[in-house]
Amino acid sequence: MKEIAVIGFGVVGGGVVSLIDENASYIREAVGEDVSVKYILDLRDFPDSPYADRVVHDAEVIFSDPAVSLVVETMGGVHPALEFSSKALACGKHVVTSNKELVAKHGAELMALAKEHGAAYLYEASVGGGIPLIRSMRTSLAGDRIDCVNGILNGTTNYILTRMRDGGISFEEALAEAQELGYAEKNPAADIHGLDAQRKIMILCAVATGYIVDESNVYTETMSKITVADIEAARRLGGAVRLIGSFRREEKGVAISVCPRIVPAGNPLSDINDVYNGMSVASRLTGDVLYYGRGAGRYPTAGAVISDVISALNGSYQRESNRTWEIAPADFVCDFAESRSRVYIRVSDAPRGEILDSASLLLGDLEVPAGTPEGKTEFVTGMLPEKQIAEAIRSLPGTVESVLRFLA
Amino acid sequence: MKEIAVIGFGVVGGGVVSLIDENASYIREAVGEDVSVKYILDLRDFPDSPYADRVVHDAEVIFSDPAVSLVVETMGGVHPALEFSSKALACGKHVVTSNKELVAKHGAELMALAKEHGAAYLYEASVGGGIPLIRSMRTSLAGDRIDCVNGILNGTTNYILTRMRDGGISFEEALAEAQELGYAEKNPAADIHGLDAQRKIMILCAVATGYIVDESNVYTETMSKITVADIEAARRLGGAVRLIGSFRREEKGVAISVCPRIVPAGNPLSDINDVYNGMSVASRLTGDVLYYGRGAGRYPTAGAVISDVISALNGSYQRESNRTWEIAPADFVCDFAESRSRVYIRVSDAPRGEILDSASLLLGDLEVPAGTPEGKTEFVTGMLPEKQIAEAIRSLPGTVESVLRFLA
Repeated sequence: MKEIAVIGFGVVGGGVVSLIDENASYIREAVGEDVSVKYILDLRDFPDSPYADRVVHDAEVIFSDPAVSLVVETMGGVHPALEFSSKALACGKHVVTSNKELVAKHGAELMALAKEHGAAYLYEASVGGGIPLIRSMRTSLAGDRIDCVNGILNGTTNYILTRMRDGGISFEEALAEAQELGYAEKNPAADIHGLDAQRKIMILCAVATGYIVDESNVYTETMSKITVADIEAARRLGGAVRLIGSFRREEKGVAISVCPRIVPAGNPLSDINDVYNGMSVASRLTGDVLYYGRGAGRYPTAGAVISDVISALNGSYQRESNRTWEIAPADFVCDFAESRSRVYIRVSDAPRGEILDSASLLLGDLEVPAGTPEGKTEFVTGMLPEKQIAEAIRSLPGTVESVLRFLA
Repeated sequence: MKEIAVIGFGVVGGGVVSLIDENASYIREAVGEDVSVKYILDLRDFPDSPYADRVVHDAEVIFSDPAVSLVVETMGGVHPALEFSSKALACGKHVVTSNKELVAKHGAELMALAKEHGAAYLYEASVGGGIPLIRSMRTSLAGDRIDCVNGILNGTTNYILTRMRDGGISFEEALAEAQELGYAEKNPAADIHGLDAQRKIMILCAVATGYIVDESNVYTETMSKITVADIEAARRLGGAVRLIGSFRREEKGVAISVCPRIVPAGNPLSDINDVYNGMSVASRLTGDVLYYGRGAGRYPTAGAVISDVISALNGSYQRESNRTWEIAPADFVCDFAESRSRVYIRVSDAPRGEILDSASLLLGDLEVPAGTPEGKTEFVTGMLPEKQIAEAIRSLPGTVESVLRFLA
C-alpha cells in the first residue's frame, strides 16, 4: 500500500482525491499496489466531506510520517507551496504539482533537490490540463529537437476572445460571462494580463531547452485592450485574435513572448475555440504537430496529476529524460526589440493620406485591407524589427488605436 | 562513429539518407558520435546519386559487417523486408522501420526477436508520418490507460474526400487529381480500400493494449463508394465524411474498424483537411487529446525514422515502456455485428412513405433531415446493433443507395 498526501483541497486537489477513489482498481494495476490518500492538508475544515477525517492543518504531520511516499501539491502560489515542496523532497518524498507559478519560478531548484534525494518532481498538470504535452515533449527530445512552440495556453482568455468574436460582445461583457460560468476567477488579472500563459511558456521553453528563463525576459502584453473592432479587423484579414504564448530558437537566442496575435485562418490555432487549449510544436526533424484538448478544469487537471502520481510511484518517471533545469544565462533570450514581426496597425484622428504617407515612409511597403470602417485608417506591415515598429508608432500622425502582431 | 545501412532507397529511404547528411552535427550531438550511412541496399543502381558508391545489391554485405549497428528498413511490403529485418535483429543490429504492413503483420515476432538479441525494433514512422503519436502513446501509458483512438490515418483518402466536398467533384476525378499531385499511387488500392488505415489502427491498438489483432478481425470498408451525394448529405447533417480508423475498449472486448463515417462538425476530426492526419486519443484519466500534423511525405516520415535512429543509437529507447506485443486471443476483439452504430441511410426507387414506415418498423425512431433531394428518402437512426441495421437494409423497399455510420 502506497500512502500519499494532498496539500491544498481546492478544485484540483479535491478532484485528485475523488479520482483516486473512483479509479482505485486501475491505479492499483498501474502502480502494483493500492494507493491511498492518508492526509489532506488545508487551512479549512471540511466537516461535510467524506474525507473529513483525513484533513490535517499541520504540514509536519505529513513530513514526519515515513509512510507517506508522495505529496501532491495543488495549493497554487509560491508560499508556502515552495517551503512545503522543498521539505517533502528533502524527506525523500516524491512531489507532483499542478502549480505553474511555483514550477516557473522555482522549478529548477526543486528538480535539483528531487534529484539529490532520489525523488521525482513532476509537473505535467502545470501546463495544458489534460493534454500530456510535457511528457510528450520530454520523450520526443530523445530523438528530435524542439525549435518552436506556439500555444493557446490559457482557456479563460480564449473563451473571452471566442465570445467577443461569435457574440460581438465587449471584453468586459465576455469576462463577466466567463466569471459567471466559473471559467474566470473573481480576480482574473493573472489570466487576462498574460501571467498565467507567461508561466506556462516559460515551463515549455525549459522542457524543450533545459533552461528556465526569468519572467522579466518574457515580453508579455495584456489582452484586456482587445476590442471588438480588433476582432473584426482580424476577421477582415482572414484570421482570429488569440492570446499566444510563444518561444522560438533564433540565431541570436530564444525569442519568448506572450501577446495577443492575429492567427491566420490556415493555422489550426485559429480554430481553437472556447476554453480549449492548443499547442503547435515544431521540431527540427518531425515538423509541426498540433496538440489540442481541454486545458483546464477539475478532472483533466486532476487526471494529469494522477498520471504523474502513477509515474512516480511505479518508477517509470526514471525512464523519461528527466533533465533538471538550469537558470538561463543572460544571452539565452534574445532582445525583443531586435526580433521581427508583421503587424496590423489602426489609426484614427488624422487624414488617411497623411497617415499612410507617413507609415510608408517609416515602415516601407504596406498592405491596406478593404472594408476599413469610416474614420479609421488601417494597414499591415511586412516583417520588421520591433524597434522600428515602436519608433514608427510614436511618430505616426493621429491616434494609434491598435497594434496587433501576426503569428508568423 | 556509428555506421548504419538503409534498405530500400525510395522516397522515404532517400529522405533518410539526405536528412542524415543535412543534420549531421545535430545528430552527432544527440547520439554522442557521428552517424554515417555505410550501405544503401536496393535492386537498382543510382549512378547519378551522390550516394552511388554506397549502393549494394547483396544484403549479406550488411548483415556480415559488424561495423553496422543499425538497419533502416524503408522497403515496404512483407517480403523480403521480413527476412531482412529478422536477419538484422538476429545479428544484434537495431532495426528502424517505416513499413506499416510489416509492423502490423509481423511486429510481434520482430519485437520478440529484438528483445532476445538486445536490440531495438522501432516503428514511429509507420503511423502518422511526422506526428510522434506512437512515442507519445507509449509514454503516456506509464500513467494512464488509452481507451479509444479515432483517427484520420490516411492522407490520400482524406485529400480525395476534401476535394470532393470543396470542389464538388466525383471520387474518380479527385483520385486522378491526387495521383497527378503525387499524393496517390498509381495503384491506390491499399489507400482507398482502407488497408493502409487498417494496418495503422492495428498498430495503434497494439501500442495501447499490448495485443496485435489479426487483420481479418478489423471491420474494413472501402471509401471508393462515397459519392458527392453522400458528402452533401453529411453537410446537410452538419458534418463531413472522413475515413476513420478506430479502436475502442468496450465491455465485451475491443471494437476495431476502418470505414467512412460522418464526423459531426463539433468534432475536430471534421476540420482536418487535405493530406493531413489527425488522431483523437481518449485516455481514462486525462480525457481527449487531438494530435494533428502531416501524416505522410518524404521529410516528415524520414524525420520520424531519424528520431528512432537517434533513440536506438543513444539507448534512450530503453527508457520507454518498450513492451513487446502478444498475439491477441480470440475473444479480444468483439464481434462487429454486436457493436452499435448510429447510421445515415439513403434510399431511392420506392415511395417515401413506404420506405419510412418500413424503416421505422425495423429501426425504431428515425430522424428525417430537411433538404433531401427529389426522388430520395433519407433518415438517421438511433444507436442500434450493426446486426439489426444489416437486417433492415436487406428488408427495406427500394434501392439502398448509401449507408454511412456516424462517428460516435
